[in-house]
Order: sequence, then structure tokens, then C-alpha cells
Amino acid sequence: MHPLSQQFGAVLRRRREAAGRSQEGLAAAAGLHRTYVSMLERGERMPSILVARKLAGALGTTMGDLLGEVDRQADDAGPAPHPRRPKP
Amino acid sequence: MHPLSQQFGAVLRRRREAAGRSQEGLAAAAGLHRTYVSMLERGERMPSILVARKLAGALGTTMGDLLGEVDRQADDAGPAPHPRRPKP
Repeated sequence: MHPLSQQFGAVLRRRREAAGRSQEGLAAAAGLHRTYVSMLERGERMPSILVARKLAGALGTTMGDLLGEVDRQADDAGPAPHPRRPKP
Repeated sequence: MHPLSQQFGAVLRRRREAAGRSQEGLAAAAGLHRTYVSMLERGERMPSILVARKLAGALGTTMGDLLGEVDRQADDAGPAPHPRRPKP
């Protein structure tokens, strides 16, 4: 898996959960399949900018805003990002 | 061709030309093939977010900034965008 797809997936999951949406609900709103949204959240697929825009629209924001957060996620994560840190 | 790929291509070409770069120079800096950059500028390919990030980096900016301009391009273009208007 590419670090960028993992970073995108982490941002997507965080935004979806913050909006109180299910994967199924978000997928339906974006015109995507639920299993594809699930794979995206796990970082298993690299989305096109069209998929990113569909998801951003379904979350009530823009592609630039959503991917700006992915940029910042990448900056925070550094060279070896790990989207889920276990609690000590 | 999808309107979004055309909008991305128009922004990419404008930014590249503003930076005084050739397609070949930009492609080399981004780690992409020149013919692929040419197809992107013509709106003939829908890039992944990874390709968008590579091109943004080669242009000295971020994915969020580059795609934020594509968002605004889409807003300006309206429902039937046409990236090259002939002069009257």
C-alpha cells in the first residue's frame, strides 16, 4: 500500500465518522460502492481526483479542502506514516 | 472526456506555463512520462491523487492548492465547461 492511499483513507474515515455517516450512507451519497469506500478507508486503493471530488461533495466540502487535509496528514506523518497508533 | 479531467488539464497547463516550464521538464521533475503529461493537459486522462501530488510538488505547491484551483475552475466553468474559447 502506498503511504498516500493510507493517508487519504485515514482522512476519509475521520471526516466520515465526524459527520456521523456510515460507509454505506457515504457511498450512496457519492455514487460509489460501499466495498470500494471500505477499501479506500483501509488505504487499499489510490483514488482518482474524480473519486476524491465525489467523496468531498458527499461530505459537504471541496476536493481542495479534503486533499489539503491529506497534505497536512502527510506532513504530520513524516517518512513512515502509520495511520492507527495503538494506545500505550 | 470528463469535464473534471479537462479542468485539471487547463489548470495544469496554466500553472506550467506560468512557471516557464516545458512539458518535458515538468514530466521529468514529477517522475512522469512527457506524453502522459501532454494527455493530462488535453484532458484525456483522469489523474490519481498520486499523480496530482507529483505534479503539484514539481510545480512547487501542494495537492490541496492545485486541486483547490481546479475546484474554482469548475465553479467558473459552470455546467458546460469549454477550456479553449475561440477569439471572436
